[in-house]
Amino acid sequence: MKFTKMHGNGNDFIVIDDRKKEFLGKERELAKELCNRNFAIGGDGILIVRESDTAETEMIIINADGSYAAMCGNGIRCFAKYVWDENIVRNNRIKIQTGDGIKEAFLKVEDDKVKEVKIYMGKASLKIEDIPAKFEEELINKQIKINGREYNITSMLMGVPHTVIFGSLDNCDVSEGKSIEKYDIFPEGTNVNFCEVVSKSKVKVKTWERGAGPTLACGTGSCAAVVASNRLGFTDEKVEVEVPGGRLVIEIEEEGVYMTGPAVVSFKGEYNL
Amino acid sequence: MKFTKMHGNGNDFIVIDDRKKEFLGKERELAKELCNRNFAIGGDGILIVRESDTAETEMIIINADGSYAAMCGNGIRCFAKYVWDENIVRNNRIKIQTGDGIKEAFLKVEDDKVKEVKIYMGKASLKIEDIPAKFEEELINKQIKINGREYNITSMLMGVPHTVIFGSLDNCDVSEGKSIEKYDIFPEGTNVNFCEVVSKSKVKVKTWERGAGPTLACGTGSCAAVVASNRLGFTDEKVEVEVPGGRLVIEIEEEGVYMTGPAVVSFKGEYNL
Repeated sequence: MKFTKMHGNGNDFIVIDDRKKEFLGKERELAKELCNRNFAIGGDGILIVRESDTAETEMIIINADGSYAAMCGNGIRCFAKYVWDENIVRNNRIKIQTGDGIKEAFLKVEDDKVKEVKIYMGKASLKIEDIPAKFEEELINKQIKINGREYNITSMLMGVPHTVIFGSLDNCDVSEGKSIEKYDIFPEGTNVNFCEVVSKSKVKVKTWERGAGPTLACGTGSCAAVVASNRLGFTDEKVEVEVPGGRLVIEIEEEGVYMTGPAVVSFKGEYNL
Repeated sequence: MKFTKMHGNGNDFIVIDDRKKEFLGKERELAKELCNRNFAIGGDGILIVRESDTAETEMIIINADGSYAAMCGNGIRCFAKYVWDENIVRNNRIKIQTGDGIKEAFLKVEDDKVKEVKIYMGKASLKIEDIPAKFEEELINKQIKINGREYNITSMLMGVPHTVIFGSLDNCDVSEGKSIEKYDIFPEGTNVNFCEVVSKSKVKVKTWERGAGPTLACGTGSCAAVVASNRLGFTDEKVEVEVPGGRLVIEIEEEGVYMTGPAVVSFKGEYNL
């Protein structure tokens, strides 16, 4: 089986062209086998290319543990570059069917190579019933005591539930996200983004992902951090975000949030199933 | 750059044919780049094939952190299969130059495929000056108090310093190896092997590797465990060892210890340096 190993800021995926539907119904087992880093290829998940009736192509994401993911910001950038590189869809704007609806990818092509991909990530909602959170008002810079420590939290739904906490990252212990994730006002838990404002156009973000712990780069978390810092007047509408695995650019427009970032082919290979 | 990703019981390596010496002097940088599991290929180390003046081929092992390794039991099995598969040395017995001298690999070939590889691992030495250990007599089932807990330890040099502790693995906390590794009677530290005797011909082993923590399979550690259990009368000369990543067979002969185990190609690929 031929595959391409890609990553977006270190969030890494095995991309498989399955337009012939060879793996239909076997996606979860395939992901569990292939993503093992010692015994197989290794990756955070697999991205499967399928033909779509409603868009130009369809992306199916399965996490390393075999669970289904509706959408993934780092994954869809890789996916868009892949379908362009492989001549599956050779457009600079590509409509991609995902579990979270049709997403549009904008490819920045230089010297016939995809350098960066911009993705419309949707709108953030700060409504407490959307997050969801059990609280009497919107959670905007609210002081909350969790596990004996005080935090000023800003929470929203940005694809998934996100909480943003501002402060210096120098001595920040991302593992504190674990108790915030499970704090009882969040019935479905929350991702936790520790954010340091560097300037009006730059922030640094470290994310504790719900159920996964610290990650190298969280696309929706970077969006949430910029929405929160813009709302609180710390930054403008276009912000560069430094994450442990690299850089993203987040833009807040009237219709929602755009994320631009890298998509890199690590290697191509052939695996014996 | 073409490569083959292989593993022996989950201890995984990127194998590169560098008989043309393209990477001479750049081995450490190459290993650090390629072994990154998110941004590159991923592996515990790289195995480089070179031509040898004194043996049929030469194996150079560089760990993921760029450090040089003289020898590795799981690595050399993969290496032997690789040079056979690639027609570099097509013999069932292959003499391989390593940093620890010339090693001989015995290939078990079935249907023109290498199924298992047997490696002569050398002799164990229980002499305290060889381990090295600061103690008044040989460390054979000696009761020692470390960090407030009592252990019966058997220590030896089996390629590297090894300590074996017998008992049930059901509730064994391998991380206790950390304090034993650094216990002050071992000036160079020690690997720690927790070993459960199942029968006269079978044991289970979990290893805490010096400087690396718990691993899926330690070749020299499995040898040390079988040498210790044979010395204490628990097992015979030929023993199957169950490790977290799979199985090994260890045989004690007059001239030293032999280890037989799997060597598996995970996939082949091409990486852009």
